[in-house]
Amino acid sequence: MRTFIIKANEAHTRADFRLNDLPGTSGRIDLLCRVLNSAFLLSHGFRKNVRVWLLLYGPPNPPKAIRFEGPKLKVRLNPDERSTAKLIMKVLKAGEDLREPGKEIEVYPGLYVSNRTFEDVIRLTVKNSALYYLHEDGKPIGELSFPQNVAFVLGDHKGLSREDEAFLDNIAERVSVGRKSYLASHVVTYVNIFLDSLPNPP
Amino acid sequence: MRTFIIKANEAHTRADFRLNDLPGTSGRIDLLCRVLNSAFLLSHGFRKNVRVWLLLYGPPNPPKAIRFEGPKLKVRLNPDERSTAKLIMKVLKAGEDLREPGKEIEVYPGLYVSNRTFEDVIRLTVKNSALYYLHEDGKPIGELSFPQNVAFVLGDHKGLSREDEAFLDNIAERVSVGRKSYLASHVVTYVNIFLDSLPNPP
Repeated sequence: MRTFIIKANEAHTRADFRLNDLPGTSGRIDLLCRVLNSAFLLSHGFRKNVRVWLLLYGPPNPPKAIRFEGPKLKVRLNPDERSTAKLIMKVLKAGEDLREPGKEIEVYPGLYVSNRTFEDVIRLTVKNSALYYLHEDGKPIGELSFPQNVAFVLGDHKGLSREDEAFLDNIAERVSVGRKSYLASHVVTYVNIFLDSLPNPP
Repeated sequence: MRTFIIKANEAHTRADFRLNDLPGTSGRIDLLCRVLNSAFLLSHGFRKNVRVWLLLYGPPNPPKAIRFEGPKLKVRLNPDERSTAKLIMKVLKAGEDLREPGKEIEVYPGLYVSNRTFEDVIRLTVKNSALYYLHEDGKPIGELSFPQNVAFVLGDHKGLSREDEAFLDNIAERVSVGRKSYLASHVVTYVNIFLDSLPNPP
């Protein structure tokens, strides 16, 4: 199982944005749509062994955690941004009245929303997965060996805060896909194709 | 210099599609937008050493060739699909009345439209670049050594036709990024990051 966890510092936590201007009105939900595309889609296929956590920290009600659970996911993910953004809108609407910190609503089969924090999700994830923080200063991905359950943490276009990085430092290994600073969705694409090439891919 | 050439069999050759439904109305111009994102964008940066040829073969006036010339490109490419699709619309409008097969219009600095065919563009490209056809049955990308000028040909979601493949067979080496069938934009992302890792990247 491959888990991708992305913290989106400005992504709106209510469906108050416009599909016609995602970059300008949603706190960069468009970036999250591209990450989902990279995480799940193959040419005419879908990766069932992937889980994605979107951690939205923008206005007005942070945090919102949206979980896409590949093995159970029934809703169709299309490659284009707009249809994925529509889906995220529906999930945010379903989670609007959520107050309990620990409760998770299953909006569609395999698609969940909750008020879980970044730290909650990391703590949950390390119980079953080896944790990696994707960072340009990390160890080259080709030099690591990966177990069957792996989880990768990414920042958005602003990156993770120092506090987030300090929290991760003791529990996640820093890993790099290259010396340049790449878009989050490109990093996810690269990690997926790289893992596919291993003798026993996670 | 890195050149990416993508043949889009159904992509509309007139700006007659709706930005609100790119997958349903444009013959998959959304796919081309994602390829441009993958070819050119870094996190807060732009790859100047990249050229992209989009070869549009859909209705009503095929073919249209759109060339994005990284070293000269002045127009800003944003990561989202919609703004890139708007740009493609403007280019198609500028090329609407083009009749001459060999004439190329510079719509914006570094951004051109013409009626060149797939074969025209391939012939032009092999004059200065080593040509590769990205295909899942090709030689693994890690086993090749690349010169400084490289060009990669990709099909869209339908792939290249047998005629196109026969034309390429004698002049392009088949190269693969993995054993699965990946989305065109993911292949471009992978190739870019892979090339970055070489001692003397093209």
